[in-house]
Amino acid sequence: MPDMNFDDTPFDDNLHEECGVFGIFGHCDAAKLTALGLHSLQHRGQEAAGIVTFDGTRFTTERRLGLVGDKFTRNEVISRLVGSSAIGHVRYSTSGGTINRNIQPLFADLSTGGIAVAHNGNLTNGLSIRQEMIKSGAIFQSTTDTESILHLIARGDAAKSDYQRVIDALKQAQGAYSFVALSPQGMMGIRDPHGVRPLVLGRLMQDNNKPAYILASESCALDIIGADFMRDIDAGEAVLINDDGITSLRPFDPAPKRFCIFEYIYFARPDSMIDGHSVYESRKNIGIQLALESGIDADIVVPVPDSGNPAAMGYAQSSGIPLELGIIRNHYIGRTFIEPTQHIRDLGVKLKHSANHHCVNGKSIILVDDSIVRGTTSRKIVEMMRRAGAKQVHMRIASPPTMWPCFYGVDTPERSKLLAANMDIAEMTRFIGADSLSFISIDGLYRAMGETARNNDNPQYCDACFTGDYPITLTDEDHKQGAKISTLFSE
Amino acid sequence: MPDMNFDDTPFDDNLHEECGVFGIFGHCDAAKLTALGLHSLQHRGQEAAGIVTFDGTRFTTERRLGLVGDKFTRNEVISRLVGSSAIGHVRYSTSGGTINRNIQPLFADLSTGGIAVAHNGNLTNGLSIRQEMIKSGAIFQSTTDTESILHLIARGDAAKSDYQRVIDALKQAQGAYSFVALSPQGMMGIRDPHGVRPLVLGRLMQDNNKPAYILASESCALDIIGADFMRDIDAGEAVLINDDGITSLRPFDPAPKRFCIFEYIYFARPDSMIDGHSVYESRKNIGIQLALESGIDADIVVPVPDSGNPAAMGYAQSSGIPLELGIIRNHYIGRTFIEPTQHIRDLGVKLKHSANHHCVNGKSIILVDDSIVRGTTSRKIVEMMRRAGAKQVHMRIASPPTMWPCFYGVDTPERSKLLAANMDIAEMTRFIGADSLSFISIDGLYRAMGETARNNDNPQYCDACFTGDYPITLTDEDHKQGAKISTLFSE
Amino acid sequence: MPDMNFDDTPFDDNLHEECGVFGIFGHCDAAKLTALGLHSLQHRGQEAAGIVTFDGTRFTTERRLGLVGDKFTRNEVISRLVGSSAIGHVRYSTSGGTINRNIQPLFADLSTGGIAVAHNGNLTNGLSIRQEMIKSGAIFQSTTDTESILHLIARGDAAKSDYQRVIDALKQAQGAYSFVALSPQGMMGIRDPHGVRPLVLGRLMQDNNKPAYILASESCALDIIGADFMRDIDAGEAVLINDDGITSLRPFDPAPKRFCIFEYIYFARPDSMIDGHSVYESRKNIGIQLALESGIDADIVVPVPDSGNPAAMGYAQSSGIPLELGIIRNHYIGRTFIEPTQHIRDLGVKLKHSANHHCVNGKSIILVDDSIVRGTTSRKIVEMMRRAGAKQVHMRIASPPTMWPCFYGVDTPERSKLLAANMDIAEMTRFIGADSLSFISIDGLYRAMGETARNNDNPQYCDACFTGDYPITLTDEDHKQGAKISTLFSE
Amino acid sequence: MPDMNFDDTPFDDNLHEECGVFGIFGHCDAAKLTALGLHSLQHRGQEAAGIVTFDGTRFTTERRLGLVGDKFTRNEVISRLVGSSAIGHVRYSTSGGTINRNIQPLFADLSTGGIAVAHNGNLTNGLSIRQEMIKSGAIFQSTTDTESILHLIARGDAAKSDYQRVIDALKQAQGAYSFVALSPQGMMGIRDPHGVRPLVLGRLMQDNNKPAYILASESCALDIIGADFMRDIDAGEAVLINDDGITSLRPFDPAPKRFCIFEYIYFARPDSMIDGHSVYESRKNIGIQLALESGIDADIVVPVPDSGNPAAMGYAQSSGIPLELGIIRNHYIGRTFIEPTQHIRDLGVKLKHSANHHCVNGKSIILVDDSIVRGTTSRKIVEMMRRAGAKQVHMRIASPPTMWPCFYGVDTPERSKLLAANMDIAEMTRFIGADSLSFISIDGLYRAMGETARNNDNPQYCDACFTGDYPITLTDEDHKQGAKISTLFSE
Repeated sequence: MPDMNFDDTPFDDNLHEECGVFGIFGHCDAAKLTALGLHSLQHRGQEAAGIVTFDGTRFTTERRLGLVGDKFTRNEVISRLVGSSAIGHVRYSTSGGTINRNIQPLFADLSTGGIAVAHNGNLTNGLSIRQEMIKSGAIFQSTTDTESILHLIARGDAAKSDYQRVIDALKQAQGAYSFVALSPQGMMGIRDPHGVRPLVLGRLMQDNNKPAYILASESCALDIIGADFMRDIDAGEAVLINDDGITSLRPFDPAPKRFCIFEYIYFARPDSMIDGHSVYESRKNIGIQLALESGIDADIVVPVPDSGNPAAMGYAQSSGIPLELGIIRNHYIGRTFIEPTQHIRDLGVKLKHSANHHCVNGKSIILVDDSIVRGTTSRKIVEMMRRAGAKQVHMRIASPPTMWPCFYGVDTPERSKLLAANMDIAEMTRFIGADSLSFISIDGLYRAMGETARNNDNPQYCDACFTGDYPITLTDEDHKQGAKISTLFSE
Repeated sequence: MPDMNFDDTPFDDNLHEECGVFGIFGHCDAAKLTALGLHSLQHRGQEAAGIVTFDGTRFTTERRLGLVGDKFTRNEVISRLVGSSAIGHVRYSTSGGTINRNIQPLFADLSTGGIAVAHNGNLTNGLSIRQEMIKSGAIFQSTTDTESILHLIARGDAAKSDYQRVIDALKQAQGAYSFVALSPQGMMGIRDPHGVRPLVLGRLMQDNNKPAYILASESCALDIIGADFMRDIDAGEAVLINDDGITSLRPFDPAPKRFCIFEYIYFARPDSMIDGHSVYESRKNIGIQLALESGIDADIVVPVPDSGNPAAMGYAQSSGIPLELGIIRNHYIGRTFIEPTQHIRDLGVKLKHSANHHCVNGKSIILVDDSIVRGTTSRKIVEMMRRAGAKQVHMRIASPPTMWPCFYGVDTPERSKLLAANMDIAEMTRFIGADSLSFISIDGLYRAMGETARNNDNPQYCDACFTGDYPITLTDEDHKQGAKISTLFSE
Repeated sequence: MPDMNFDDTPFDDNLHEECGVFGIFGHCDAAKLTALGLHSLQHRGQEAAGIVTFDGTRFTTERRLGLVGDKFTRNEVISRLVGSSAIGHVRYSTSGGTINRNIQPLFADLSTGGIAVAHNGNLTNGLSIRQEMIKSGAIFQSTTDTESILHLIARGDAAKSDYQRVIDALKQAQGAYSFVALSPQGMMGIRDPHGVRPLVLGRLMQDNNKPAYILASESCALDIIGADFMRDIDAGEAVLINDDGITSLRPFDPAPKRFCIFEYIYFARPDSMIDGHSVYESRKNIGIQLALESGIDADIVVPVPDSGNPAAMGYAQSSGIPLELGIIRNHYIGRTFIEPTQHIRDLGVKLKHSANHHCVNGKSIILVDDSIVRGTTSRKIVEMMRRAGAKQVHMRIASPPTMWPCFYGVDTPERSKLLAANMDIAEMTRFIGADSLSFISIDGLYRAMGETARNNDNPQYCDACFTGDYPITLTDEDHKQGAKISTLFSE
Repeated sequence: MPDMNFDDTPFDDNLHEECGVFGIFGHCDAAKLTALGLHSLQHRGQEAAGIVTFDGTRFTTERRLGLVGDKFTRNEVISRLVGSSAIGHVRYSTSGGTINRNIQPLFADLSTGGIAVAHNGNLTNGLSIRQEMIKSGAIFQSTTDTESILHLIARGDAAKSDYQRVIDALKQAQGAYSFVALSPQGMMGIRDPHGVRPLVLGRLMQDNNKPAYILASESCALDIIGADFMRDIDAGEAVLINDDGITSLRPFDPAPKRFCIFEYIYFARPDSMIDGHSVYESRKNIGIQLALESGIDADIVVPVPDSGNPAAMGYAQSSGIPLELGIIRNHYIGRTFIEPTQHIRDLGVKLKHSANHHCVNGKSIILVDDSIVRGTTSRKIVEMMRRAGAKQVHMRIASPPTMWPCFYGVDTPERSKLLAANMDIAEMTRFIGADSLSFISIDGLYRAMGETARNNDNPQYCDACFTGDYPITLTDEDHKQGAKISTLFSE
């Protein structure tokens, strides 16, 4: 059994979406609306944010560590961002300290004008491209794979349109990406051939009766600015938005759609609609299915807030067992917290959650959470329930066991740290200290999404984190030795 | 009708508790445990926090603007706070900019040694005392009424014990207070004669089998550090905690208990127990009672998160109408946000809440919220529901109409700004744009708290904000002309 | 011989004036002119600065750590300081970390209105007053003796004018002080009976032909704002400036004038005039006298810049030996510098000064400096000259040996750290590594100031640091045991 | 006559050197010694500084706005910079706001390893190279011409050594540069063919008897760390320093040496030796020559401190007129200062300099300054002298009239702002308000430098700012239209 040390990190044992993107073309308040849109996508990345605007002549960039609501709200920042088109990005830092120059959007001066780019996702051949580029004299200033795309664009055929250069560049890229770009020739949005990451198109009518167009990772970013949802960008689709309206191409070889099913389970905001599914409804359905599969007698159903709430509601509804708020979430966490002495650690302090003692005491409870990654949070929460007097604690998980890392834009620990990759159900139950533990089945998950079962020959979603069935070649991963970034950037 | 301008403040139309207090005596990790305790009381004040420790010889103070989790977590701050006893305070700034020297605990060098003090509540004769003191040569360094108490203590009889001097001082004070003090002679905790604000006593056993004692505004602060709840401090009780254990006195003239009923409705954390009542259960009971009083046919019950959640659950349970999360809360607000242009304001942007469109669209909904203050937030939320497609919006409020300002430690707008003080139900319904609006009745509220009805001769709680029945004389208020603080402190 | 360890402090082995004061009455630009005046007095204290203004109704305060030119220049600071009268203060922190609430001016709300006070100097019974006050219930918020005066004022007779209350308070104070105060009744300036610290009066005519009046520590603060020098405030004089003009009183018992002679040697700015003497001329005269007393044959005279420049010019002129800039001063020091490894320390690194190798190499040089305190800087500079190739290094000091600490407002090390208090000339010469060392004689110093000799019965100046002849009783010092401030303030 | 508006900038009307460089190879304290060296070169650039170290495997970078003494002294910064070799840079920002990514050294990952580069000077074809590079797909991240060199290196022949690639790159560059680079193959230093900017080589013996080698802009950077001066790097010389010692090449076509004569007049530190001349002695000689050329009867010679000091000493010595410190420099300026109202501006406030009234009053004075650029500072200083009572003010300038902008690494205003390019002597005299004004002649300047006269066919120095005789082609300048950087970087 691998080393499963007690994890001191007090807050966080979730998977993390790495990014969210937003773009708007043709609105006098482009920068402010982009800030609002990014604010509504903040759940996709809280470490840093950036906005680039274009005013017809010049690009302006602001990129900051921190929340959009803190860093893009003072007038001296937002008023610098002049222009009627803008793209923006929120970022979750994947490893080590965040460095400023990794904050997107990135920008390059082309001989034909500037271009700003940003994406949500991850290239699986980003390092390989980087190595090739460096060999031919390119200079990289960040460690992002976005910069690999930017160099491909810069090296492209200057005789072609920016739109075509971007498409040419992305044809050389492998991986999952929802990509936005802004150049003097317009705003572009491209979703990878498998459509792993979400991207929607919206429209905001202005007083002059002209529409502004919006690209965003999720529909909640349209809602916040009062824009209309037009449609999802298709897998493999590239759109160009300029004063002539919207041009759409399918420039890539056809590929089966494989949208990330974990977006429905955890990443996306419950009020978003993706590919016609309400995220909130999907989660409730997963809870309903979970109760059908692994019902057990108990006094109350308790969600692990807030991500477990909809599934717990579905579970309670399906099982007839009353829902109770047995765990209270503290909203005022701050960014850091005391490094605990062993003494304090032994007290079992929880900073983000606390038990609702009166509610839990003496009860047998069904705890509903979205997933188990390393298992450390689950163990703490089970222990917290027991300290509060819970008679029995049955853990029900609204996803199948997470057994494989994601290479398509989600920050997952390596396999040796994934609990389910290293233990069977009995061992996991012991590890987290529960009386019982069940995960939804993979087919049950598909059923909750409206399918009859997983199509094992051609799965309807990307579920590689549960199945190891990776739809896109892992080029860098397969050549890991040679594909490292060895230089230490510190800024 | 008074002026009811559209309120631009995008976030906040709630009443605010002004403070929380915490103290611990006899623990090697006094400062860290105080930081943790204050963290769990952060909902009672987010503007500033302070901790004073005593190591047997010297007092050390750290007072900072910001969250405990941000400002009291770095080692350079917490390690300065040496000593085995500590008191701390979290503060909500009541008016204008917060100034550093108002951050509690306050401290004075007495000829017999130092003393640090902090309180939750508000003196109703604080300014009158201040004026008297200044006439006799005292110099005030803050604008808090806590400093009035501190001067009363400093002017007290040096031949008496600190405990007695504190009691003597508080005998001259009127108002609502849960007061803690720390001197070389021990830690003290005193609750005003009516017991308006909460204060609990707890115990944490240490490895050496000696107990550390804790005073805290709410029992959730005991839970976070694993301490045992001993009992509520009684109304009018004064305790002294030192190496000899706990001394308890009832030094004040007897007075009827009048605990603030709004603590159950909104201020206290749901996982706290106060005077034998679970806050969470009380809120659910209020929801149950509310459904009984003002039931209406609808498709779904939607809580205004998070404060409306328990009442909405009670309402749904009592009415049989399903609960749905029709409003999603954004957890990444940041401290500031863009000053909206009129254009953006017209978009109806909400930064803290968003509608769950798919869930709400085409439904008639019952919105459950804890209270209505100025009405601006309710109006925005109703509008948000309608934009999301709600067919009908029925607002149900888990408290009676808030018609009178609080002078006992809650930041309320003046009467002219309180919606219910200026409109009847029909007008309010129109103002917020709902199809119907009901508040729980005052007797219904008491019933939800386990009483048969309000005892109008001697009410079981302080409910002055609903009834105007003020249990404690408003001395400063009655002499308002003379009782102002005219000097501008800016630091 | 006491321990004379190598001092690692790389910059500073000078005595430090503790403060400078400035006040202006009756000018529309009061705050800005005060900032300019304090900027010109910055050599008297660089740690912190404060300004209080009065606009006829309200006082406004800004107090900041750092330089006036950094902290009082942004419009958001200076524009807050409304009003046509102002007093300000620059401060040198005397011990430990500077704490914000020690920054002057201090302020108190009196029953008759507010009063702001600031002073340059030091009370010799400040702690004794503090102790008395605390016994009778006063609360101190700083550790400054200025606050002792403020409490004396606050406790004064409210029936009297502010002017009289200030005078009454200062009658109870012993020590050296140039004191300014601002109340609704006017601006006040008072110099202690011996006139130890400087204070001048100036006038600035305005467009409307009305004069604004200025009080300042030195005349250079009048020059910078284009004001006319009117006269020095006399020793023991109190002036009140208001719309009626200037009122002058001599409220104290007559006492011999004892102006600090070290102001001429080092503290004051060379372009200031004090009591009719040009500081620059005085320093040149000291150099001339020093050459007469201790002439020696050498190739060049080298000043230790910048404080040794005028004396070196006088020395060169008197001796006929050419002046050369053998030491170059680095103007870009910054606030901190690398803690040197032993290795780097052995390199003899100097951050503030460097040798002008070509100029010094192979020469016998006369180094002229203003004073020797601990001797560590002198030792480093002699060593630097030798490393640069100087054949001989003769040190000449423009003051007598500094043997006694100052209790009148100058930060001096204790006696055991004063080189001249612990060594004879031969030992000191060896310690600093010079070929010869001479100080100006005490009578020579008086001669340079235009006297025929020191009047030993009634010295013309305070020269206690050279002679131990303290003109003012050292009350606190004599009762040191009881007169400590035991509480740790940390803010 | 061009517009010569009153310049509000209160401090600065000097020309500015744009940079200083430092490098060290083979010392265990490489980063600390680099910080010290950069500190001693701080006069060459105060806006920003950067250090890159190499530890045999990895490069580490720290680049900060601000002074070395402030930003490179805390242990958390300096201790990150591991490795026994380092290069560093101090920078003066030439236009607009400084942006972080322009701070040098710059770094690139090559396929053969990393390389860090920095230089002092300016390429005259930097923009042309940039344009070519961008056309072929290079992405620029800064607006510096240093990055143009870096791209030339990155595009170089990967089969060649780094040393050769750097040389190949610089063969394509035109302009003035003293260039340092650090790669796994060693530290390099290259001076442009004309040797316009200074670069010296030094050696520091270590305890293990192995030498560390140093490259620095000026010899004062060797002095501060106790290193020995070995020699100036020759014009057109390239050195490679690695474990095998020092390799020297002359890879460029021979060109006449044209060292910048203004380095002697103003830029370099007086204690530096350049090409065998002491900067201090050169300045004194210029003063001596100036007195011979334009002697006039007066009471005193007054230097404009500190840059005018040596020339004033030479002038006084040559003329027999006594030197007096008639202008006092304020050392505590801070970074910003109050934006003056017109009222305050009329007061003639000077923040950096003040008149020594007593010294100047009633005298006819000769003011000695190093140069006149826009003339605004001279005008203010003359006015200051007159307000202080000077009877006559004769201005003597230790350089010929500055009439042409520099394109070789000095920040000069455009010609229309250069006083001497737009007025004759009589007009300038009137403009600055002096009684007389003289500049040293161009031949006199050469004489002071030890020449008999300027060799007009092949001048011994670059004196283009006085003569317009530019030794290096101004490629970018000649194609200005096309050679702009149009993109706005803001970070």
